[in-house]
Amino acid sequence: MIVIKIGGGAEIDHEAILRDLKRQLDGGERAVVIHGANHEMKIISEQLGKPPRMITSVSGYESRYTDAETIEIFNMVYAGKVNTMLVALAHRLGINAVGLSGVDGGLLRGPRKKALKVVENGKRMIIRDDHSGRIEDVNVDLLRTLLDAGYTPLISPPALSDEGEPINVDGDRAAACIAAALGADRLIILSNVPGLLRDKDDESTLIDRVDRRRMDEFETFAEGRMKKKTMGAAEAIDQGVGEVIFADARIDDPIEHALRHEGTVIS
Amino acid sequence: MIVIKIGGGAEIDHEAILRDLKRQLDGGERAVVIHGANHEMKIISEQLGKPPRMITSVSGYESRYTDAETIEIFNMVYAGKVNTMLVALAHRLGINAVGLSGVDGGLLRGPRKKALKVVENGKRMIIRDDHSGRIEDVNVDLLRTLLDAGYTPLISPPALSDEGEPINVDGDRAAACIAAALGADRLIILSNVPGLLRDKDDESTLIDRVDRRRMDEFETFAEGRMKKKTMGAAEAIDQGVGEVIFADARIDDPIEHALRHEGTVIS
Repeated sequence: MIVIKIGGGAEIDHEAILRDLKRQLDGGERAVVIHGANHEMKIISEQLGKPPRMITSVSGYESRYTDAETIEIFNMVYAGKVNTMLVALAHRLGINAVGLSGVDGGLLRGPRKKALKVVENGKRMIIRDDHSGRIEDVNVDLLRTLLDAGYTPLISPPALSDEGEPINVDGDRAAACIAAALGADRLIILSNVPGLLRDKDDESTLIDRVDRRRMDEFETFAEGRMKKKTMGAAEAIDQGVGEVIFADARIDDPIEHALRHEGTVIS
Repeated sequence: MIVIKIGGGAEIDHEAILRDLKRQLDGGERAVVIHGANHEMKIISEQLGKPPRMITSVSGYESRYTDAETIEIFNMVYAGKVNTMLVALAHRLGINAVGLSGVDGGLLRGPRKKALKVVENGKRMIIRDDHSGRIEDVNVDLLRTLLDAGYTPLISPPALSDEGEPINVDGDRAAACIAAALGADRLIILSNVPGLLRDKDDESTLIDRVDRRRMDEFETFAEGRMKKKTMGAAEAIDQGVGEVIFADARIDDPIEHALRHEGTVIS
Protein backbone atom coordinates (compact mmCIF):
# COMPACT_ATOMS: atom_id res chain seq x y z
CA MET A 1 0.00 0.00 0.00
CA ILE A 2 1.32 3.44 -0.93
CA VAL A 3 -0.11 6.79 0.10
CA ILE A 4 0.62 9.65 -2.28
CA LYS A 5 0.27 13.32 -1.43
CA ILE A 6 -0.02 15.60 -4.45
CA GLY A 7 0.96 19.17 -3.66
CA GLY A 8 -1.29 22.10 -4.50
CA GLY A 9 1.37 24.24 -6.15
CA ALA A 10 1.14 25.89 -9.56
CA GLU A 11 3.61 23.73 -11.49
CA ILE A 12 2.24 20.29 -10.58
CA ASP A 13 1.60 18.06 -13.62
CA HIS A 14 -1.51 16.18 -12.49
CA GLU A 15 -1.76 14.15 -15.65
CA ALA A 16 1.83 12.85 -15.35
CA ILE A 17 1.19 11.85 -11.73
CA LEU A 18 -2.12 10.07 -12.38
CA ARG A 19 -0.75 8.35 -15.49
CA ASP A 20 2.11 7.01 -13.37
CA LEU A 21 -0.39 6.03 -10.64
CA LYS A 22 -2.34 4.02 -13.22
CA ARG A 23 0.81 2.03 -14.02
CA GLN A 24 1.42 1.33 -10.32
CA LEU A 25 -2.20 0.15 -9.92
CA ASP A 26 -1.92 -2.02 -13.04
CA GLY A 27 1.17 -3.57 -11.44
CA GLY A 28 -0.96 -4.67 -8.48
CA GLU A 29 -0.16 -1.83 -6.06
CA ARG A 30 -2.95 -0.37 -3.89
CA ALA A 31 -2.94 3.37 -3.37
CA VAL A 32 -4.71 6.19 -1.59
CA VAL A 33 -4.16 9.75 -2.83
CA ILE A 34 -4.44 13.03 -0.91
CA HIS A 35 -4.18 16.35 -2.68
CA GLY A 36 -3.76 20.03 -1.93
CA ALA A 37 -5.14 23.04 -3.79
CA ASN A 38 -3.09 25.95 -2.54
CA HIS A 39 -2.58 27.65 -5.89
CA GLU A 40 -6.28 27.41 -6.89
CA MET A 41 -7.27 28.61 -3.41
CA LYS A 42 -5.24 31.77 -3.98
CA ILE A 43 -6.87 32.43 -7.36
CA ILE A 44 -10.48 31.87 -6.26
CA SER A 45 -10.05 33.68 -2.93
CA GLU A 46 -8.74 36.72 -4.76
CA GLN A 47 -11.59 36.56 -7.31
CA LEU A 48 -14.04 36.52 -4.39
CA GLY A 49 -12.34 39.54 -2.82
CA LYS A 50 -10.93 37.56 0.10
CA PRO A 51 -7.18 37.12 -0.57
CA PRO A 52 -5.35 34.50 1.56
CA ARG A 53 -3.90 35.68 4.84
CA MET A 54 -1.14 33.63 6.41
CA ILE A 55 -0.48 33.54 10.13
CA THR A 56 2.59 32.34 12.02
CA SER A 57 2.18 30.42 15.27
CA VAL A 58 4.38 31.29 18.26
CA SER A 59 6.28 28.06 17.56
CA GLY A 60 7.07 29.30 14.04
CA TYR A 61 4.66 27.31 11.87
CA GLU A 62 2.92 29.14 9.05
CA SER A 63 -0.74 28.41 8.26
CA ARG A 64 -3.76 29.85 6.51
CA TYR A 65 -6.02 32.12 8.56
CA THR A 66 -9.39 30.39 8.08
CA ASP A 67 -12.34 32.47 9.26
CA ALA A 68 -15.97 31.45 8.60
CA GLU A 69 -15.91 32.89 5.08
CA THR A 70 -12.54 31.31 4.23
CA ILE A 71 -13.58 27.77 5.24
CA GLU A 72 -16.52 28.01 2.80
CA ILE A 73 -14.18 29.06 -0.03
CA PHE A 74 -11.78 26.32 1.11
CA ASN A 75 -14.54 23.67 0.81
CA MET A 76 -15.45 24.95 -2.65
CA VAL A 77 -11.91 24.92 -3.99
CA TYR A 78 -10.52 21.77 -2.33
CA ALA A 79 -13.57 19.43 -2.20
CA GLY A 80 -15.37 21.01 -5.18
CA LYS A 81 -13.12 22.37 -7.88
CA VAL A 82 -9.80 20.55 -7.54
CA ASN A 83 -11.14 17.21 -6.23
CA THR A 84 -13.77 16.95 -8.99
CA MET A 85 -11.19 17.91 -11.63
CA LEU A 86 -8.74 15.25 -10.38
CA VAL A 87 -11.38 12.50 -10.07
CA ALA A 88 -12.59 13.18 -13.62
CA LEU A 89 -8.99 13.19 -14.91
CA ALA A 90 -8.35 9.89 -13.08
CA HIS A 91 -11.38 8.34 -14.82
CA ARG A 92 -10.12 9.57 -18.22
CA LEU A 93 -6.85 7.75 -17.48
CA GLY A 94 -8.64 4.55 -16.45
CA ILE A 95 -8.46 4.90 -12.65
CA ASN A 96 -11.75 4.14 -10.88
CA ALA A 97 -11.38 7.03 -8.42
CA VAL A 98 -13.82 8.10 -5.71
CA GLY A 99 -13.33 11.60 -4.36
CA LEU A 100 -13.75 12.13 -0.64
CA SER A 101 -13.24 15.03 1.71
CA GLY A 102 -12.31 14.40 5.33
CA VAL A 103 -15.92 15.25 6.22
CA ASP A 104 -17.32 12.22 4.32
CA GLY A 105 -18.08 9.39 6.71
CA GLY A 106 -16.00 11.29 9.31
CA LEU A 107 -12.92 10.20 7.36
CA LEU A 108 -10.60 12.72 9.06
CA ARG A 109 -11.70 13.82 12.53
CA GLY A 110 -10.23 15.90 15.30
CA PRO A 111 -10.55 18.96 17.48
CA ARG A 112 -10.85 22.48 16.12
CA LYS A 113 -8.22 24.81 17.56
CA LYS A 114 -10.24 27.22 19.63
CA ALA A 115 -7.46 29.67 20.34
CA LEU A 116 -4.49 30.10 18.03
CA LYS A 117 -1.47 31.85 19.53
CA VAL A 118 0.16 33.76 16.71
CA VAL A 119 2.80 36.40 16.16
CA GLU A 120 1.96 39.29 13.88
CA ASN A 121 4.36 42.16 13.27
CA GLY A 122 6.33 40.99 16.28
CA LYS A 123 3.27 41.08 18.57
CA ARG A 124 1.62 38.05 20.14
CA MET A 125 -2.14 37.71 19.61
CA ILE A 126 -4.83 35.10 20.11
CA ILE A 127 -7.15 34.24 17.20
CA ARG A 128 -10.48 32.69 18.22
CA ASP A 129 -12.47 32.57 14.96
CA ASP A 130 -10.15 30.23 13.09
CA HIS A 131 -11.74 27.10 11.54
CA SER A 132 -8.71 24.87 11.52
CA GLY A 133 -7.67 21.90 13.56
CA ARG A 134 -5.69 18.74 13.90
CA ILE A 135 -6.54 15.17 12.86
CA GLU A 136 -6.82 12.59 15.64
CA ASP A 137 -8.89 9.88 13.95
CA VAL A 138 -8.94 8.37 10.46
CA ASN A 139 -11.93 6.25 9.39
CA VAL A 140 -9.83 3.44 7.94
CA ASP A 141 -12.94 1.26 7.47
CA LEU A 142 -14.34 3.64 4.85
CA LEU A 143 -11.04 3.55 2.92
CA ARG A 144 -10.81 -0.25 3.12
CA THR A 145 -14.45 -0.62 2.05
CA LEU A 146 -13.74 1.41 -1.09
CA LEU A 147 -10.34 -0.19 -1.79
CA ASP A 148 -11.81 -3.69 -1.40
CA ALA A 149 -14.58 -2.77 -3.86
CA GLY A 150 -11.96 -1.73 -6.44
CA TYR A 151 -11.99 2.06 -6.02
CA THR A 152 -9.02 4.38 -5.53
CA PRO A 153 -9.82 7.01 -2.87
CA LEU A 154 -8.77 10.53 -3.83
CA ILE A 155 -8.93 12.63 -0.69
CA SER A 156 -8.96 16.34 0.02
CA PRO A 157 -9.24 18.46 3.17
CA PRO A 158 -11.36 19.75 5.02
CA ALA A 159 -11.62 17.41 8.02
CA LEU A 160 -14.62 17.13 10.37
CA SER A 161 -14.25 18.73 13.81
CA ASP A 162 -15.44 16.98 16.96
CA GLU A 163 -18.40 19.39 16.86
CA GLY A 164 -19.23 18.35 13.28
CA GLU A 165 -17.96 21.43 11.45
CA PRO A 166 -15.60 21.38 8.44
CA ILE A 167 -12.09 22.42 9.48
CA ASN A 168 -8.96 23.29 7.54
CA VAL A 169 -6.19 20.77 8.17
CA ASP A 170 -2.74 20.61 6.66
CA GLY A 171 -2.64 18.25 3.67
CA ASP A 172 0.84 16.87 4.36
CA ARG A 173 -0.03 16.00 7.94
CA ALA A 174 -3.38 14.55 6.76
CA ALA A 175 -1.43 12.33 4.36
CA ALA A 176 0.84 11.25 7.22
CA CYS A 177 -2.18 10.36 9.41
CA ILE A 178 -3.79 8.37 6.59
CA ALA A 179 -0.54 6.51 5.79
CA ALA A 180 -0.09 5.66 9.47
CA ALA A 181 -3.73 4.55 9.90
CA LEU A 182 -3.50 2.29 6.84
CA GLY A 183 -0.11 0.92 7.90
CA ALA A 184 1.24 1.94 4.48
CA ASP A 185 4.67 0.78 3.35
CA ARG A 186 5.43 4.15 1.81
CA LEU A 187 4.24 7.73 1.91
CA ILE A 188 5.28 9.76 -1.14
CA ILE A 189 4.98 13.52 -0.85
CA LEU A 190 5.09 15.09 -4.31
CA SER A 191 5.50 18.86 -4.59
CA ASN A 192 7.21 21.49 -6.68
CA VAL A 193 10.63 20.91 -5.10
CA PRO A 194 12.90 17.87 -5.56
CA GLY A 195 12.95 17.18 -1.81
CA LEU A 196 14.46 18.69 1.33
CA LEU A 197 17.20 21.16 0.37
CA ARG A 198 20.12 22.43 2.49
CA ASP A 199 19.67 25.75 0.70
CA LYS A 200 16.04 26.21 -0.32
CA ASP A 201 17.09 28.34 -3.30
CA ASP A 202 19.51 25.77 -4.69
CA GLU A 203 18.04 22.49 -5.94
CA SER A 204 21.54 20.95 -6.16
CA THR A 205 21.70 20.89 -2.34
CA LEU A 206 19.20 18.02 -2.06
CA ILE A 207 19.45 15.95 1.11
CA ASP A 208 18.97 12.40 -0.13
CA ARG A 209 18.57 10.45 3.13
CA VAL A 210 17.38 11.39 6.59
CA ASP A 211 17.45 9.05 9.55
CA ARG A 212 14.35 9.64 11.69
CA ARG A 213 16.53 9.51 14.83
CA ARG A 214 18.58 12.43 13.47
CA MET A 215 15.54 14.31 12.13
CA ASP A 216 16.04 17.26 14.47
CA GLU A 217 19.31 18.19 12.75
CA PHE A 218 17.56 18.34 9.38
CA GLU A 219 14.52 20.26 10.53
CA THR A 220 16.66 23.39 10.62
CA PHE A 221 16.77 23.25 6.78
CA ALA A 222 12.97 23.16 6.49
CA GLU A 223 11.38 26.54 5.93
CA GLY A 224 7.79 27.64 5.30
CA ARG A 225 5.59 24.82 4.01
CA MET A 226 8.50 22.31 4.21
CA LYS A 227 8.24 22.53 8.02
CA LYS A 228 4.83 20.80 7.97
CA LYS A 229 6.16 18.16 5.58
CA THR A 230 9.04 17.21 7.88
CA MET A 231 6.68 17.24 10.87
CA GLY A 232 4.23 14.97 9.00
CA ALA A 233 7.08 12.68 7.92
CA ALA A 234 8.29 12.27 11.50
CA GLU A 235 4.71 11.53 12.67
CA ALA A 236 4.24 8.95 9.91
CA ILE A 237 7.50 7.10 10.70
CA ASP A 238 6.74 7.17 14.44
CA GLN A 239 3.39 5.51 13.71
CA GLY A 240 4.88 2.68 11.67
CA VAL A 241 5.02 3.86 8.03
CA GLY A 242 8.05 2.19 6.39
CA GLU A 243 9.48 5.25 4.70
CA VAL A 244 8.52 8.74 3.62
CA ILE A 245 9.81 10.13 0.33
CA PHE A 246 9.74 13.82 -0.60
CA ALA A 247 9.93 13.94 -4.39
CA ASP A 248 9.50 16.16 -7.42
CA ALA A 249 5.97 16.46 -8.86
CA ARG A 250 7.07 18.40 -11.94
CA ILE A 251 8.70 15.53 -13.86
CA ASP A 252 7.49 12.56 -15.89
CA ASP A 253 6.81 9.35 -13.92
CA PRO A 254 7.13 11.14 -10.57
CA ILE A 255 5.91 8.16 -8.52
CA GLU A 256 8.34 5.77 -10.24
CA HIS A 257 11.21 8.20 -9.59
CA ALA A 258 10.17 8.55 -5.95
CA LEU A 259 10.03 4.75 -5.56
CA ARG A 260 13.60 4.67 -6.90
CA HIS A 261 14.51 6.97 -4.02
CA GLU A 262 15.11 10.04 -6.15
CA GLY A 263 14.27 12.71 -3.61
CA THR A 264 14.64 12.83 0.16
CA VAL A 265 14.04 9.47 1.83
CA ILE A 266 13.16 9.52 5.53
CA SER A 267 13.18 6.26 7.43
CA MET B 1 -35.58 2.14 0.22
CA ILE B 2 -36.45 5.80 -0.28
CA VAL B 3 -34.69 8.29 -2.48
CA ILE B 4 -35.02 11.91 -1.41
CA LYS B 5 -34.28 14.91 -3.62
CA ILE B 6 -33.67 18.13 -1.70
CA GLY B 7 -34.27 21.21 -3.82
CA GLY B 8 -31.68 23.96 -4.14
CA GLY B 9 -34.04 26.88 -3.52
CA ALA B 10 -33.55 29.66 -1.00
CA GLU B 11 -36.20 28.71 1.54
CA ILE B 12 -35.24 25.07 2.06
CA ASP B 13 -34.81 24.12 5.75
CA HIS B 14 -31.94 21.61 5.51
CA GLU B 15 -31.84 20.95 9.21
CA ALA B 16 -35.57 20.05 9.36
CA ILE B 17 -35.12 17.66 6.43
CA LEU B 18 -32.02 15.91 7.78
CA ARG B 19 -33.50 15.71 11.30
CA ASP B 20 -36.55 13.97 9.79
CA LEU B 21 -34.25 11.73 7.72
CA LYS B 22 -32.46 10.69 10.93
CA ARG B 23 -35.82 9.51 12.37
CA GLN B 24 -36.57 7.52 9.20
CA LEU B 25 -33.12 5.88 9.37
CA ASP B 26 -33.58 5.13 13.08
CA GLY B 27 -36.87 3.44 12.15
CA GLY B 28 -34.95 1.04 9.89
CA GLU B 29 -35.45 2.81 6.54
CA ARG B 30 -32.57 2.97 4.03
CA ALA B 31 -32.18 6.19 2.10
CA VAL B 32 -30.14 7.89 -0.58
CA VAL B 33 -30.25 11.69 -0.83
CA ILE B 34 -29.66 13.92 -3.87
CA HIS B 35 -29.49 17.68 -3.52
CA GLY B 36 -29.53 20.80 -5.65
CA ALA B 37 -27.76 24.11 -5.07
CA ASN B 38 -29.49 26.53 -7.41
CA HIS B 39 -29.72 29.43 -4.99
CA GLU B 40 -26.06 29.19 -3.90
CA MET B 41 -25.03 28.83 -7.54
CA LYS B 42 -26.68 32.16 -8.29
CA ILE B 43 -24.90 33.90 -5.38
CA ILE B 44 -21.40 32.55 -6.09
CA SER B 45 -21.71 32.97 -9.88
CA GLU B 46 -22.60 36.60 -9.39
CA GLN B 47 -19.74 37.12 -6.93
CA LEU B 48 -17.38 35.68 -9.54
CA GLY B 49 -18.75 38.02 -12.20
CA LYS B 50 -20.45 35.24 -14.16
CA PRO B 51 -24.22 35.53 -13.46
CA PRO B 52 -26.37 32.52 -14.44
CA ARG B 53 -27.75 32.48 -17.96
CA MET B 54 -30.77 30.30 -18.66
CA ILE B 55 -31.50 28.84 -22.09
CA THR B 56 -34.72 27.35 -23.44
CA SER B 57 -34.62 24.29 -25.67
CA VAL B 58 -36.76 24.17 -28.82
CA SER B 59 -39.02 21.71 -26.96
CA GLY B 60 -39.58 24.30 -24.22
CA TYR B 61 -37.33 23.05 -21.39
CA GLU B 62 -35.35 25.62 -19.47
CA SER B 63 -31.79 24.84 -18.35
CA ARG B 64 -28.59 26.50 -17.25
CA TYR B 65 -26.13 27.53 -19.96
CA THR B 66 -22.97 25.75 -18.78
CA ASP B 67 -19.85 26.88 -20.60
CA ALA B 68 -16.33 25.81 -19.52
CA GLU B 69 -16.17 28.49 -16.83
CA THR B 70 -19.66 27.73 -15.50
CA ILE B 71 -19.04 23.99 -15.05
CA GLU B 72 -16.05 24.83 -12.81
CA ILE B 73 -18.19 27.14 -10.68
CA PHE B 74 -20.90 24.46 -10.72
CA ASN B 75 -18.45 21.84 -9.35
CA MET B 76 -17.32 24.26 -6.65
CA VAL B 77 -20.82 25.14 -5.48
CA TYR B 78 -22.58 21.77 -5.82
CA ALA B 79 -19.83 19.25 -4.97
CA GLY B 80 -17.81 21.64 -2.79
CA LYS B 81 -19.82 24.18 -0.87
CA VAL B 82 -23.33 22.75 -0.56
CA ASN B 83 -22.41 19.04 -0.44
CA THR B 84 -19.76 19.58 2.26
CA MET B 85 -22.15 21.76 4.26
CA LEU B 86 -24.92 19.12 4.09
CA VAL B 87 -22.62 16.20 4.92
CA ALA B 88 -21.25 18.06 7.97
CA LEU B 89 -24.81 18.97 9.07
CA ALA B 90 -25.85 15.32 8.65
CA HIS B 91 -22.97 14.23 10.92
CA ARG B 92 -24.00 16.80 13.55
CA LEU B 93 -27.47 15.22 13.49
CA GLY B 94 -26.08 11.69 13.82
CA ILE B 95 -26.31 10.57 10.18
CA ASN B 96 -23.16 8.81 8.92
CA ALA B 97 -23.27 10.54 5.54
CA VAL B 98 -20.78 10.21 2.69
CA GLY B 99 -20.92 12.93 0.06
CA LEU B 100 -20.51 11.94 -3.57
CA SER B 101 -20.75 13.73 -6.86
CA GLY B 102 -21.82 11.87 -9.98
CA VAL B 103 -18.15 11.88 -11.05
CA ASP B 104 -17.07 9.68 -8.10
CA GLY B 105 -16.69 6.08 -9.19
CA GLY B 106 -18.59 7.06 -12.36
CA LEU B 107 -21.74 7.16 -10.20
CA LEU B 108 -23.78 9.06 -12.81
CA ARG B 109 -22.65 8.61 -16.40
CA GLY B 110 -23.95 9.60 -19.78
CA PRO B 111 -23.32 11.52 -22.97
CA ARG B 112 -22.58 15.23 -23.08
CA LYS B 113 -24.96 17.10 -25.38
CA LYS B 114 -22.72 18.28 -28.16
CA ALA B 115 -25.22 20.57 -29.84
CA LEU B 116 -28.08 22.19 -27.94
CA LYS B 117 -30.93 23.52 -30.06
CA VAL B 118 -32.26 26.56 -28.25
CA VAL B 119 -34.58 29.49 -28.82
CA GLU B 120 -33.35 32.93 -27.81
CA ASN B 121 -35.39 36.07 -28.42
CA GLY B 122 -37.57 34.06 -30.80
CA LYS B 123 -34.56 32.90 -32.83
CA ARG B 124 -33.31 29.33 -33.10
CA MET B 125 -29.62 28.80 -32.39
CA ILE B 126 -27.24 25.91 -31.78
CA ILE B 127 -24.96 26.00 -28.71
CA ARG B 128 -21.86 23.82 -28.98
CA ASP B 129 -19.82 24.75 -25.88
CA ASP B 130 -22.35 23.58 -23.30
CA HIS B 131 -21.09 21.15 -20.63
CA SER B 132 -24.35 19.44 -19.81
CA GLY B 133 -25.76 16.06 -20.56
CA ARG B 134 -28.09 13.25 -19.70
CA ILE B 135 -27.63 10.29 -17.36
CA GLU B 136 -27.71 6.82 -18.91
CA ASP B 137 -25.92 4.76 -16.24
CA VAL B 138 -25.97 4.73 -12.45
CA ASN B 139 -23.21 2.88 -10.57
CA VAL B 140 -25.58 1.10 -8.19
CA ASP B 141 -22.72 -1.07 -6.85
CA LEU B 142 -21.01 1.97 -5.33
CA LEU B 143 -24.24 3.02 -3.58
CA ARG B 144 -24.91 -0.51 -2.29
CA THR B 145 -21.31 -0.85 -1.08
CA LEU B 146 -21.71 2.30 1.00
CA LEU B 147 -25.26 1.49 2.19
CA ASP B 148 -24.20 -2.02 3.22
CA ALA B 149 -21.30 -0.54 5.20
CA GLY B 150 -23.75 1.69 7.10
CA TYR B 151 -23.28 4.99 5.25
CA THR B 152 -25.97 7.27 3.83
CA PRO B 153 -24.94 8.56 0.39
CA LEU B 154 -25.57 12.27 -0.12
CA ILE B 155 -25.23 12.95 -3.82
CA SER B 156 -24.80 16.06 -5.91
CA PRO B 157 -24.35 16.76 -9.63
CA PRO B 158 -22.15 16.98 -11.77
CA ALA B 159 -22.23 13.65 -13.64
CA LEU B 160 -19.33 12.16 -15.64
CA SER B 161 -19.59 12.31 -19.42
CA ASP B 162 -18.68 9.36 -21.62
CA GLU B 163 -15.46 11.27 -22.41
CA GLY B 164 -14.68 11.62 -18.69
CA GLU B 165 -15.57 15.28 -18.22
CA PRO B 166 -17.82 16.67 -15.48
CA ILE B 167 -21.22 17.62 -16.91
CA ASN B 168 -24.18 19.51 -15.53
CA VAL B 169 -27.23 17.27 -15.19
CA ASP B 170 -30.65 18.10 -13.83
CA GLY B 171 -30.94 17.11 -10.16
CA ASP B 172 -34.58 15.96 -10.35
CA ARG B 173 -33.89 13.69 -13.29
CA ALA B 174 -30.70 12.44 -11.57
CA ALA B 175 -32.85 11.56 -8.54
CA ALA B 176 -35.29 9.71 -10.81
CA CYS B 177 -32.43 7.72 -12.41
CA ILE B 178 -31.00 6.81 -9.00
CA ALA B 179 -34.41 5.78 -7.61
CA ALA B 180 -35.04 3.64 -10.69
CA ALA B 181 -31.57 2.03 -10.58
CA LEU B 182 -31.98 1.18 -6.88
CA GLY B 183 -35.52 -0.10 -7.39
CA ALA B 184 -36.67 2.31 -4.67
CA ASP B 185 -40.19 2.08 -3.25
CA ARG B 186 -40.52 5.85 -3.16
CA LEU B 187 -38.93 8.94 -4.62
CA ILE B 188 -39.67 12.10 -2.61
CA ILE B 189 -38.95 15.40 -4.34
CA LEU B 190 -38.81 18.19 -1.75
CA SER B 191 -38.80 21.78 -2.96
CA ASN B 192 -40.13 25.20 -2.10
CA VAL B 193 -43.64 24.45 -3.41
CA PRO B 194 -46.23 22.10 -1.85
CA GLY B 195 -46.45 20.02 -5.05
CA LEU B 196 -47.84 20.35 -8.56
CA LEU B 197 -50.26 23.30 -8.70
CA ARG B 198 -53.05 23.97 -11.20
CA ASP B 199 -52.21 27.65 -10.84
CA LYS B 200 -48.52 28.07 -9.99
CA ASP B 201 -49.26 31.31 -8.11
CA ASP B 202 -51.93 29.76 -5.87
CA GLU B 203 -50.80 27.08 -3.41
CA SER B 204 -54.44 26.14 -2.71
CA THR B 205 -54.69 24.61 -6.20
CA LEU B 206 -52.53 21.59 -5.28
CA ILE B 207 -53.12 18.50 -7.41
CA ASP B 208 -53.02 15.66 -4.89
CA ARG B 209 -52.90 12.60 -7.14
CA VAL B 210 -51.70 11.98 -10.66
CA ASP B 211 -52.11 8.68 -12.48
CA ARG B 212 -48.99 8.06 -14.61
CA ARG B 213 -51.25 6.95 -17.50
CA ARG B 214 -52.92 10.38 -17.44
CA MET B 215 -49.65 12.29 -16.85
CA ASP B 216 -49.86 14.15 -20.18
CA GLU B 217 -52.96 16.04 -19.02
CA PHE B 218 -51.13 17.27 -15.92
CA GLU B 219 -47.92 18.24 -17.63
CA THR B 220 -49.68 21.32 -18.99
CA PHE B 221 -49.72 22.68 -15.40
CA ALA B 222 -45.96 22.26 -15.02
CA GLU B 223 -43.99 25.41 -15.74
CA GLY B 224 -40.28 26.26 -15.51
CA ARG B 225 -38.40 23.93 -13.20
CA MET B 226 -41.56 21.87 -12.49
CA LYS B 227 -41.36 20.56 -16.08
CA LYS B 228 -38.18 18.62 -15.28
CA LYS B 229 -39.75 17.28 -12.08
CA THR B 230 -42.76 15.85 -13.92
CA MET B 231 -40.49 14.44 -16.63
CA GLY B 232 -38.28 12.83 -13.96
CA ALA B 233 -41.35 11.46 -12.14
CA ALA B 234 -42.67 9.84 -15.31
CA GLU B 235 -39.23 8.32 -16.03
CA ALA B 236 -38.98 6.96 -12.48
CA ILE B 237 -42.44 5.33 -12.56
CA ASP B 238 -41.78 3.86 -16.02
CA GLN B 239 -38.62 2.24 -14.63
CA GLY B 240 -40.37 0.62 -11.67
CA VAL B 241 -40.29 3.13 -8.78
CA GLY B 242 -43.45 2.57 -6.68
CA GLU B 243 -44.48 6.20 -6.34
CA VAL B 244 -43.10 9.69 -6.69
CA ILE B 245 -44.16 12.38 -4.22
CA PHE B 246 -43.66 16.11 -4.80
CA ALA B 247 -43.75 17.72 -1.35
CA ASP B 248 -43.00 20.88 0.60
CA ALA B 249 -39.43 21.30 1.89
CA ARG B 250 -40.24 24.40 3.95
CA ILE B 251 -42.11 22.70 6.79
CA ASP B 252 -41.21 20.62 9.86
CA ASP B 253 -40.95 16.85 9.28
CA PRO B 254 -41.13 17.22 5.49
CA ILE B 255 -40.32 13.56 4.79
CA GLU B 256 -42.96 12.32 7.25
CA HIS B 257 -45.55 14.62 5.64
CA ALA B 258 -44.57 13.40 2.17
CA LEU B 259 -44.86 9.76 3.27
CA ARG B 260 -48.39 10.61 4.50
CA HIS B 261 -49.09 11.69 0.91
CA GLU B 262 -49.29 15.42 1.67
CA GLY B 263 -48.22 16.78 -1.69
CA THR B 264 -48.65 15.47 -5.21
CA VAL B 265 -48.49 11.68 -5.44
CA ILE B 266 -47.68 10.20 -8.85
CA SER B 267 -48.12 6.47 -9.34
